[in-house]
Amino acid sequence: MGCKNCCSICLQCLFGYETNVMLVINNKGVGALFRLIQFMIIAYVRAYQDTDSVISSVSTKVKGNILTNTSIEGVHVWDVPEYVIPPQGEKSFFVLTNVIPTPGQTQSKCPEIPSEVTKCESDSDCIEGHTEVHGNGVQTGHCVQYSDTIKTCEVHAWCPLENDTIIPKPALLGAAEHFTVLIKNNIQYPKFNFRKRNLLHHINSTYLKNCTFDRKTDPHCPIFRLGHMVTEAGEDFSVMALKGGIIGILIDWNCDLEFPERFCIPKYSFSRLDNKNPENNVAPGYNFRFAKYYKNNKSIETRTLIKAFGIRFDVIVFGMAGKFNIVPTIVNLGAALACLSLVTAICDWVMLTCMKDRDQYAKRKFIHLNQNGDSVQGLA
Amino acid sequence: MGCKNCCSICLQCLFGYETNVMLVINNKGVGALFRLIQFMIIAYVRAYQDTDSVISSVSTKVKGNILTNTSIEGVHVWDVPEYVIPPQGEKSFFVLTNVIPTPGQTQSKCPEIPSEVTKCESDSDCIEGHTEVHGNGVQTGHCVQYSDTIKTCEVHAWCPLENDTIIPKPALLGAAEHFTVLIKNNIQYPKFNFRKRNLLHHINSTYLKNCTFDRKTDPHCPIFRLGHMVTEAGEDFSVMALKGGIIGILIDWNCDLEFPERFCIPKYSFSRLDNKNPENNVAPGYNFRFAKYYKNNKSIETRTLIKAFGIRFDVIVFGMAGKFNIVPTIVNLGAALACLSLVTAICDWVMLTCMKDRDQYAKRKFIHLNQNGDSVQGLA
Amino acid sequence: MGCKNCCSICLQCLFGYETNVMLVINNKGVGALFRLIQFMIIAYVRAYQDTDSVISSVSTKVKGNILTNTSIEGVHVWDVPEYVIPPQGEKSFFVLTNVIPTPGQTQSKCPEIPSEVTKCESDSDCIEGHTEVHGNGVQTGHCVQYSDTIKTCEVHAWCPLENDTIIPKPALLGAAEHFTVLIKNNIQYPKFNFRKRNLLHHINSTYLKNCTFDRKTDPHCPIFRLGHMVTEAGEDFSVMALKGGIIGILIDWNCDLEFPERFCIPKYSFSRLDNKNPENNVAPGYNFRFAKYYKNNKSIETRTLIKAFGIRFDVIVFGMAGKFNIVPTIVNLGAALACLSLVTAICDWVMLTCMKDRDQYAKRKFIHLNQNGDSVQGLA
Repeated sequence: MGCKNCCSICLQCLFGYETNVMLVINNKGVGALFRLIQFMIIAYVRAYQDTDSVISSVSTKVKGNILTNTSIEGVHVWDVPEYVIPPQGEKSFFVLTNVIPTPGQTQSKCPEIPSEVTKCESDSDCIEGHTEVHGNGVQTGHCVQYSDTIKTCEVHAWCPLENDTIIPKPALLGAAEHFTVLIKNNIQYPKFNFRKRNLLHHINSTYLKNCTFDRKTDPHCPIFRLGHMVTEAGEDFSVMALKGGIIGILIDWNCDLEFPERFCIPKYSFSRLDNKNPENNVAPGYNFRFAKYYKNNKSIETRTLIKAFGIRFDVIVFGMAGKFNIVPTIVNLGAALACLSLVTAICDWVMLTCMKDRDQYAKRKFIHLNQNGDSVQGLA
Repeated sequence: MGCKNCCSICLQCLFGYETNVMLVINNKGVGALFRLIQFMIIAYVRAYQDTDSVISSVSTKVKGNILTNTSIEGVHVWDVPEYVIPPQGEKSFFVLTNVIPTPGQTQSKCPEIPSEVTKCESDSDCIEGHTEVHGNGVQTGHCVQYSDTIKTCEVHAWCPLENDTIIPKPALLGAAEHFTVLIKNNIQYPKFNFRKRNLLHHINSTYLKNCTFDRKTDPHCPIFRLGHMVTEAGEDFSVMALKGGIIGILIDWNCDLEFPERFCIPKYSFSRLDNKNPENNVAPGYNFRFAKYYKNNKSIETRTLIKAFGIRFDVIVFGMAGKFNIVPTIVNLGAALACLSLVTAICDWVMLTCMKDRDQYAKRKFIHLNQNGDSVQGLA
Repeated sequence: MGCKNCCSICLQCLFGYETNVMLVINNKGVGALFRLIQFMIIAYVRAYQDTDSVISSVSTKVKGNILTNTSIEGVHVWDVPEYVIPPQGEKSFFVLTNVIPTPGQTQSKCPEIPSEVTKCESDSDCIEGHTEVHGNGVQTGHCVQYSDTIKTCEVHAWCPLENDTIIPKPALLGAAEHFTVLIKNNIQYPKFNFRKRNLLHHINSTYLKNCTFDRKTDPHCPIFRLGHMVTEAGEDFSVMALKGGIIGILIDWNCDLEFPERFCIPKYSFSRLDNKNPENNVAPGYNFRFAKYYKNNKSIETRTLIKAFGIRFDVIVFGMAGKFNIVPTIVNLGAALACLSLVTAICDWVMLTCMKDRDQYAKRKFIHLNQNGDSVQGLA
C-alpha cells in the first residue's frame, strides 16, 4: 500500500461518518409506547441551575416598657437597655422575662445553701478547698449554722448566696409578650450578584410605623410581637416566661432567580429550639447569671447578682438561590438522552417477547455471526 | 428442544456480544460536521469536583485612642474597652462613633418627651399603666408640666429621660476612621482535611507591625483602617459616623484544591450591609442603648444611659473548596457520552434532509418492517 | 401525493418504532469482556441523594468556682458570672484564665509606659494630640518623669496606665481546667423536616447529672471538662491558660437519613483554631480588655480595667443530610447508561483490532456508502 492509499484511508476514517442502521417497525402499539416513554423523558429535561448559599446580615431592635412592683425592689420600670441582653441588637437576642435578684453580694464567707451534699454535722464533713460541682463557692472546711436547725459547710463566695429554689410565678416580666421587635435583614447571593432586604419595595414608612407581622394580613411587615412569635411556635408565653427557652425566627430566602427579583421574598416561621420537658432534660428552659458591680461606701466591691430567665430569639437566615447554568443543564440533558436508550431497550423487549411476529422481528434485527465468521440468520 | 439446546441458547445469550450495524458514509461535509461536534463535546468532558463549605473562626482586635472635649463631660479619652462593644473581639464588633449620654438616671417619675401622643391637657388624656410604643416608660395617669408651655403625660421611668432629638454633629468620635483592626481568620475544609489562616506564610512579624491593608500595595496584610474599609464600601466615614451603619468585611476563601495550597488565598471585600436612606427606611443607621450602673451616695441605683451610634463590622467568611472526585466525574463523562448520540442525530438529519442523495441514504439506513412482517425497503 | 398519503406518512413517522439493527457475535472472550464491563457499570448505579445543610441552635452552661489569693486582691472566689464572658451561654463563650487588673483608673494625665517611641528628653519630643498606635492615650505634648531615671511623654488617658509587661505565671485561674460545660445543641434539616438534639433518647437525667464526656466510656454525654477538650486538641491547658487561645468544639451531624433516625448521632471533636507560636504571629494567644465602672466618693467615674486572657470556645456545628431523591438518581442512571455505550465501543475495538476474523466482522458491521451513493462492502 503506497502512502497515498494510506492517507486516503486516514481521511476516510477521519471524515467517514458513522450512523446506525435502523430497523423501522410499523406496529402502532409498540410505536405508541415508544413515543410515550420518549415524551416522558423529554418532558423531564429542563434547564438546570447553579446554586449559591445565602449570606446574611441581621439587626434587631426591641421596643417596650414594663412596670413591676415587688416587695424587694418596689416600683421599677424596665426598659430595653435593662431587659435586652446583649444590647447591641444582634441576630441572637435575649429578652428577660423572670429574675431572681440577689443584691449586696460581697466577697466573704457564708454557709452553703442546704442540699444532700452540703449539709454537715461537724467540720470533718467539710473539706477545705473543695468545690462542689453544683455549689456556690470554695469550702473553708468549717461546718456552720445555716438556720436554727440546719448546719452546712461554710464557703468562700459572693455572699449572701443566691437562693434560686423559688422562681417568681407568674413571671415578673410576663408582660414582655407585648413587646415588639423590628428585624432588619439584608441578604446577598454573591455568585449571582443579587442583594435584597426584608423591607420590601412596596412597604413605606407610614405602614412600618404601625404594622405588626400577621401571616394573613401583614405577611411582609418586619415588626413582630414577641407573644405572637411564641404562639406561632406552639407555646404559651406565660408558661415559657417562667423558666425561659429558645425561639428560632427562621427566615427562608429560597429563591429561583430565573423569575423577576420581586418574587424573591422572605418567608418567616417560628419554632421552639430547646426542648420543653422531655424526661431526660437537665436544666430545662434558658437562664444565665450576670452581675452589676458597685463599690459601696467603704469602697468594697459589691454586686447585684441576677439570675435571668428569659427567651432567647435566634434569627436564623437560610436559603439557596438557583439560576440557569449551562454545565448542570448539559449534565441533565445527557442523562435524559441516555435514558432514551432505555426506551429502545424496553420496546425491543416488548417486540421480541410479546408480539406474535417476534421471530420475524428478531430475524431482521439481529445478524448473528458465529465465531468462525459465518453469518447465521435467526437461531431457532 | 432438549436441555442441552436450552443451555446452549442461554450461554449464547450471556456471552453473545451485541454491536450495532453501522452505515459508514463517505461524505466530507457531513463527516467534518460530525467530527467537529464530537470534538466539542469531548473537550467539554473534564474532571469534576467534590465540594465542601468553609468552617471558620475569627478574632478581631481594634487599636486606637481618641480625645474628646465636650461641655458636658469635659476632656475624655476613649480607649478600646470603652468604644468597642462587645469587647471580646468576636467576628461582629461595634465601634462607637457618636453618643448621646444621659447621666444620673434613677427610677422615678417625670414628664414624657413631648410628641403627638404624649402631649396632654389634663389627667384624663393620660391612662394609668399605659405604655406608648415609642415612649420611655409607663404612664402614671397624670398630666404634668414638661416646660413652661407644654404639658405631657407623666411616666414611671429612668428619669431624667433621654432627649435624642439632637444628634451631635460632627460625630463625637468621628476620628475613629483612623483606628485599625487586626483580623485573624482560621479556616478549614473538614472533608479535605485542609486548614489555613489569613496570616500567610510569607508574612513576618516585622511586616505585620507596620502594614495596613491596601488592595494594591499590601493585599495580604490583615490589618485594616476603619476609614479605608468604609471608603471601599463606597461610603463617607464622617457621614456614616453620625447615625451609624453596618459594614460587611467579606472574606472569600473559594479555592480549587487541585492547585498547590499556596494558591488558596483569601480575597477581601467591603460593602455596606444596611440601607442608607431609601424612602421606606425606618430607624436608618445603627444604634442601640446601654447603661452603666452605679450606686449613688444614698445607695440608690443610678445609671448613665448611653445611646450609642456606630458602625458594626460583620466579618463574613464564605467559600467552597473543590477537589477531584470520581463520582461527579463519571456522571459528567456519562452525560457527555450521551450527548455524543445527539451528534449522530444531527448529522442524520442533515444527511436525510439536505443531501441530494438523501433517498439513497435512507434506503440503506432504514430497514422498514410492516406490521405483517414484510420488509419494505424505502417508502417513496 | 394526496392528503391521505401525506397523513399516512405522518402517522408512520409518529408511530414507526425505530430500533438499531444489531450484529450478534458469538465470541466467548469478547462476550465475557462485554458482560463484565456492563456488570461493573450497573453495579455503580445506585440511589442518589438530595442534600440539605444543618440549621443549628446552641446553648452552653459552664459550672465551677475558683479561689485565688493574690497580694493585690486578697482572697477572691471567681464564679461563673465573673469569668464567663459574655454570660448568656451562647455558642461562642470565653473562659477567663489569667488577668492583669488595673484598679482605680480615672480620666487624667500620666506618663506613658516607657518604650522606644514614648521615651523623651524634652517637651519637643512629644506632640500634642498625637496618638501612638500601641500607646494608651493622647499625648499632651509634655515630657514628664516616669521613674527616677526615665522620662516619657505625658498622655491624657485612664490613669494609672495598665502595665501588662508581666503576665502572672502560673495563670491565675489555671484551675479552670476542672470546669465543666454543658452544651445543648438542637439541629434541623428543614428540607427533610428532621429535628434532633444532642441529648439522645437513651440518656436520662440521672446519667446526665454525673457524666462527663469521654470518647470511650461516655461518647454521648454532652458535659465536657475544659481541660479534657484542650488535651484532645493536643494542647497543654496550663500553658494555654497563660496567654489564652481559641478552641473549636466541632459537632459533626453528617447523616444519611435513609437509615433510621437513631443512627443520626453527633460526633464531637476538638481542635485549636488560633495559631500557637509560628514565626509570623502577632499578638499570640487570645486576650481583650474590659472595664467595670464605678463612681467614687466624689462622684468621679472610676473603673477597674481588666486585661483578660482566656480560652474562647467556639461551638461549630456542621453537617449535611442526604435522602433519596428521584432527580439526582435519574441523572446518575442516565450517566451509567451512557457509559454502557462505552462498553460496545471498547468491545468493537477489541473485535476489529485483535481478533483474527476482524475483516469478517468489519464487513458485517459496517455498510460503507460512498458520496455517490454506491454501497461498498469492505474497504481492503
